[in-house]
Amino acid sequence: MNDRALRHIVVGMGGPANGYLREDGYDIVVASEVMAILCLATGRADLKERLGRIVIGYKSDRVTPVYARDLNAQGAMAAILKDAIKPNLVQTLENNIAIIHGGPFANIAHGCNTVTATKTALKLADYVVTEAGFGADLGAEKFIDIKCRMSGLKPSAVVLVATIRALKFHGNIAKEDLNTENLAALEQGFVNLERHYHNITQHYGLPCVVCINHFTFDTDAEIALLQQKCADLGATCIVSKHWATGGAGAETLAQAIINIVDHREPEFTYVYDENLSLWGKIETIATKLYGASRVTANAKVKAQLAEWDADYGKFPICMAKTQMSFSTNPNAKGAPTGHTVEIREVKLANGAGFIVAIAGDIMTMPGLPKVPAAERIDIDNDGRITGLF
Amino acid sequence: MNDRALRHIVVGMGGPANGYLREDGYDIVVASEVMAILCLATGRADLKERLGRIVIGYKSDRVTPVYARDLNAQGAMAAILKDAIKPNLVQTLENNIAIIHGGPFANIAHGCNTVTATKTALKLADYVVTEAGFGADLGAEKFIDIKCRMSGLKPSAVVLVATIRALKFHGNIAKEDLNTENLAALEQGFVNLERHYHNITQHYGLPCVVCINHFTFDTDAEIALLQQKCADLGATCIVSKHWATGGAGAETLAQAIINIVDHREPEFTYVYDENLSLWGKIETIATKLYGASRVTANAKVKAQLAEWDADYGKFPICMAKTQMSFSTNPNAKGAPTGHTVEIREVKLANGAGFIVAIAGDIMTMPGLPKVPAAERIDIDNDGRITGLF
Amino acid sequence: MNDRALRHIVVGMGGPANGYLREDGYDIVVASEVMAILCLATGRADLKERLGRIVIGYKSDRVTPVYARDLNAQGAMAAILKDAIKPNLVQTLENNIAIIHGGPFANIAHGCNTVTATKTALKLADYVVTEAGFGADLGAEKFIDIKCRMSGLKPSAVVLVATIRALKFHGNIAKEDLNTENLAALEQGFVNLERHYHNITQHYGLPCVVCINHFTFDTDAEIALLQQKCADLGATCIVSKHWATGGAGAETLAQAIINIVDHREPEFTYVYDENLSLWGKIETIATKLYGASRVTANAKVKAQLAEWDADYGKFPICMAKTQMSFSTNPNAKGAPTGHTVEIREVKLANGAGFIVAIAGDIMTMPGLPKVPAAERIDIDNDGRITGLF
Amino acid sequence: MNDRALRHIVVGMGGPANGYLREDGYDIVVASEVMAILCLATGRADLKERLGRIVIGYKSDRVTPVYARDLNAQGAMAAILKDAIKPNLVQTLENNIAIIHGGPFANIAHGCNTVTATKTALKLADYVVTEAGFGADLGAEKFIDIKCRMSGLKPSAVVLVATIRALKFHGNIAKEDLNTENLAALEQGFVNLERHYHNITQHYGLPCVVCINHFTFDTDAEIALLQQKCADLGATCIVSKHWATGGAGAETLAQAIINIVDHREPEFTYVYDENLSLWGKIETIATKLYGASRVTANAKVKAQLAEWDADYGKFPICMAKTQMSFSTNPNAKGAPTGHTVEIREVKLANGAGFIVAIAGDIMTMPGLPKVPAAERIDIDNDGRITGLF
Repeated sequence: MNDRALRHIVVGMGGPANGYLREDGYDIVVASEVMAILCLATGRADLKERLGRIVIGYKSDRVTPVYARDLNAQGAMAAILKDAIKPNLVQTLENNIAIIHGGPFANIAHGCNTVTATKTALKLADYVVTEAGFGADLGAEKFIDIKCRMSGLKPSAVVLVATIRALKFHGNIAKEDLNTENLAALEQGFVNLERHYHNITQHYGLPCVVCINHFTFDTDAEIALLQQKCADLGATCIVSKHWATGGAGAETLAQAIINIVDHREPEFTYVYDENLSLWGKIETIATKLYGASRVTANAKVKAQLAEWDADYGKFPICMAKTQMSFSTNPNAKGAPTGHTVEIREVKLANGAGFIVAIAGDIMTMPGLPKVPAAERIDIDNDGRITGLF
Repeated sequence: MNDRALRHIVVGMGGPANGYLREDGYDIVVASEVMAILCLATGRADLKERLGRIVIGYKSDRVTPVYARDLNAQGAMAAILKDAIKPNLVQTLENNIAIIHGGPFANIAHGCNTVTATKTALKLADYVVTEAGFGADLGAEKFIDIKCRMSGLKPSAVVLVATIRALKFHGNIAKEDLNTENLAALEQGFVNLERHYHNITQHYGLPCVVCINHFTFDTDAEIALLQQKCADLGATCIVSKHWATGGAGAETLAQAIINIVDHREPEFTYVYDENLSLWGKIETIATKLYGASRVTANAKVKAQLAEWDADYGKFPICMAKTQMSFSTNPNAKGAPTGHTVEIREVKLANGAGFIVAIAGDIMTMPGLPKVPAAERIDIDNDGRITGLF
Repeated sequence: MNDRALRHIVVGMGGPANGYLREDGYDIVVASEVMAILCLATGRADLKERLGRIVIGYKSDRVTPVYARDLNAQGAMAAILKDAIKPNLVQTLENNIAIIHGGPFANIAHGCNTVTATKTALKLADYVVTEAGFGADLGAEKFIDIKCRMSGLKPSAVVLVATIRALKFHGNIAKEDLNTENLAALEQGFVNLERHYHNITQHYGLPCVVCINHFTFDTDAEIALLQQKCADLGATCIVSKHWATGGAGAETLAQAIINIVDHREPEFTYVYDENLSLWGKIETIATKLYGASRVTANAKVKAQLAEWDADYGKFPICMAKTQMSFSTNPNAKGAPTGHTVEIREVKLANGAGFIVAIAGDIMTMPGLPKVPAAERIDIDNDGRITGLF
Repeated sequence: MNDRALRHIVVGMGGPANGYLREDGYDIVVASEVMAILCLATGRADLKERLGRIVIGYKSDRVTPVYARDLNAQGAMAAILKDAIKPNLVQTLENNIAIIHGGPFANIAHGCNTVTATKTALKLADYVVTEAGFGADLGAEKFIDIKCRMSGLKPSAVVLVATIRALKFHGNIAKEDLNTENLAALEQGFVNLERHYHNITQHYGLPCVVCINHFTFDTDAEIALLQQKCADLGATCIVSKHWATGGAGAETLAQAIINIVDHREPEFTYVYDENLSLWGKIETIATKLYGASRVTANAKVKAQLAEWDADYGKFPICMAKTQMSFSTNPNAKGAPTGHTVEIREVKLANGAGFIVAIAGDIMTMPGLPKVPAAERIDIDNDGRITGLF
């Protein structure tokens, strides 16, 4: 049950036989630290070690953490995840290998598939493409600063996927007008792509190919303009029509990537050094990648981070920010600068090994539809299920 | 998680986005009405129909039921049970077929495996043996009055399993003395077996074979005495050593049962008529089978049953009573008579199609060990799980 | 606020600054053990001592009591009751002294005014009349076995107040017919008065005057019949019209009482000895006074009483039973015999110094009207309050 | 009971007889909107009107307010406050009149005594002095913008009370050094007094006398310096020793005030116009009085204020800010400028008739001591209470 009524509950009522009363709550699976751990674990031993160091509460001094291992829970938890840790192989419609494995949120978690999936793929194929959730300010940043840093993975290149619709949206066009040609809006919104391209090449030190994810509404003039703007940046920009023609539609793109991967040595680097203070890491991400001029937080948040610097200071930061803008204001389109990033709350994910920093008013739990999806689901007498999608 | 802290909870806290506050609670799977429904459903259509008529609450008039189907929940629930409803086939060490399917509690539910399992077995084998939980006052009674009545199953004979240890226990011997020969205690405790035998043959109208489930502690004199006592009743009594020698050890028993099944026509009958009032059904079970002289309940319980007579009057009763005695006093060994059965509480299981009557001080939820079983569970680096049993 | 929503609550939510979560609840003042204590305390020192020994919970072993004095609460509690313990003097319309002081419930508490009020009155007047709540099976029994026993008070006589209406009601007449003459019903219902008279004279050893609390509906024939029936018992029976003519209307009654008090030495006795077991005391009350043939309780209740026998065995019992009948069935009019009294629950009131035994389905908390009384209350611009009654 | 466990509770548990579950909480009396209402009400009719318009919740559309008058609660609430609304007269040690009446918090409420007290005093005396809680940025501002505006009161002059200790504290001296002469610190901290003086004379348009609340630690040099600094501002500055010599010690001060009141016509004005938007009012207070350069709030807070502008736009603002600084940072001593005031939360006090704006990390509920004050409270056998203070 995906029931929001379980988000905040009181448990243990009914007398001592039912334990002690406490406030508690359910997270959905993708928001659980266990999901982040599963995705970052390099093997069973590491999985168990990470599960064991989840902080599940504090002793009565309110300072000393209680770890899952203090409850001897890591063995049973790892046993439950016995099969979950194995990458599962699916195939595309053209019978190519694809691995779909792990699904941590891209805001309060790091938004990438599992380390075991990526490493397995690297042993099975000559070239491996993996996806990172949301824009490159969130997905790529976490892929690099969290997943690559923890696992030792080193990407060879980045494919920056853009749509002409989205760029026009960043040019401040209303949603209902996005399917109409608008060169001015495209030109205006291009600054968003430019900022991502700049971040990838300058701050991560990686070669980058721009992929235009084609829509039938895209006009020749728009495609030409976008390619011209990319060329001005020195960026390769390729129209990809895989949605229509499958593998063939992405062949040019693939060839371009292979060219880079085979012939260029990336000067790969993380956005921040692990020895920076936690607050310093947040400031670096916000100023370098988001274009912010300032990061603020109330005294409690700052004190918490300063306290964590002692024990968890080497942890990377997992930013929870809106995916709609480089800033924390979802309506600030394009490539905003000079804005303030307010860190509302910070959370320790000790098992995952990162600090979540919640920036701005982002919702960390998805809303639910007014009419439950369950109402449409049914099964007939022959066992055929309907209404799932 | 089998966590007692979830037995009684408050959900929906944290404001209107999380719904309305309400008191709620988790049952363990075997105690859920969904388990009882799964076990009684004759097919997918019946499953869905039963799930849909679960009473999940009452309207603000506190009288009109709200059914699961009012929430359109039955389709999704049945979809989740898509595979669960299929009987699953396992095999014995001698490679015979066994079907293990469904596990409702034998106190607040009816304690038998699924109807689909029994019917499948009947199509696959010449003779089918099924087990009913606890003593024949609980297991056999519910098998007959609930499962057989609802599904149209008609048993041919009953195997009444007894151990010499248990009969001596009913002869009021301390647990630590049960492995020592004690003919007097065996004779005294025999009244318990006699009552069960009487119930089966007189009240259910079924032929009955007594099976002595052999222990190495059983002495020849004890076995001889028990067989003599059975003979006095006119009952076939066979020592079965399947625990030691497998199928061969039960062959005599099997042959005895086949003899009966093939040659005797049972005069099978339910213990009570479905047209009796709910209270009348409870009285019938208590006086005919338990030897009670009286059934009591407070005014609220009686009023509730009287009210249910209108809409649910044809439902059978699912008695929740201690399995330690024919009475509600677990220490009343043998075959007590003249006792009072107090019905503390009654519950409507509208989807399952029965009324649960809680008799005496029985616990309807199992306790949990002081040290969680989870602490012993572990998995090694090769994926081998340990500590499950 | 007399708000039923406060009966059962969870407190301490919102994090450690707000303490530990626990289930708690509000009682109305008259149901509080503090009220019972205030009424039984013989002075400030005794008040403080009793407040200090209230059991407010149990240690984590679930057995060792935690007393209010362990929290040093008795001083502050007694300070709050500084003025409350002083009997407050009011006057009747004829300018006689009346003391109205203390109001414990007559079911879960002992239903009498304060010891300090009664003792003060005894120093101020030659004759003191005090009222005990409900019928003599509840009010008089608790007055004698709890209040007198604890305080050393010794009553000289009992005035048994009856109405012809109530006796006809015990003769099984419908409420709407009570104002019509019905000698047969009166005669039939007289057994109720007879039982009370018997209890008072035989079990408490006190002289008893019957007072007919006159109603205008009472017919001469009814009064004559009642007086005749009383005479047959050997009881003085006097019609009292104080409701109409004030003190003058009760003069004959007063004179009769004075006659007894001045000239007869009561052989006053408690209903049970303090050295009886707690269960024995309950049985004595139920069989001697209520006419019951049997007292039952589930194993948990019996075990609780047996456990309390060690530390609280000398405590009197405070029965919480319906005031509508000698039995626990409010519809059993007259003087029922042979009935069973079921003790559903027992509670320790260690500060008050008694054990509450809840018999049958009695409600220990009053219901609330559908329309809150507060809706009618108002105050005008001159400060005059309306709607209080 | 001042029990923090009651701050956040769940009520209505235990089934429908106890109403609907909801999250609720207790405020301490001074934090209640009822206290603010009592203090602002101009009479019984106004009291009742204000109580009736308290917003107690919202309808299921989450937008339409439910008022206390919709529950018919205002009459009963006003009846309870029957006596509380009457100003209570006490006397000083010199037998002068003093009225102590009402005590709303000076952060989440307006921190002044009742309107009825002030108006009563104005009818009884030639000159009335009233106190406003905390510094003039909080107390005087709310006295003027809330209490005077609502009641039509017009002050004639302001006495700005300062201590040499406090000014040295604003000169950044440690607490333990405050009793030592330190002219440099006094001079440095004087900017705090200067800002208050400026606010009072320029923004409220009121004449202002500075009163040095004398301490024995004050040195002649310090007093001379302070008087010189005040003279430079054009401000009268008088040393007052009422703490030592009673009325005589304040006579010079009183005479100075009378001089002003009798001979100067104030150009009294509010700090902001009632027609400004709610956000505009907050900005005005923060920039004019606090010296802030910017006010921030998250989108939710701003949207809330904008929504309230329609129905409650004329309401004054009740700022909840630390009393330790002109800014929201309690450590920013002196007269900080250029700071940012963050509005964390806003609350509608519809009965009181103002909007509470919570600025910075202020605690709106006082903490409690580790050892409850109740532990020290006691009463002896003669009724003497000890340990209250």
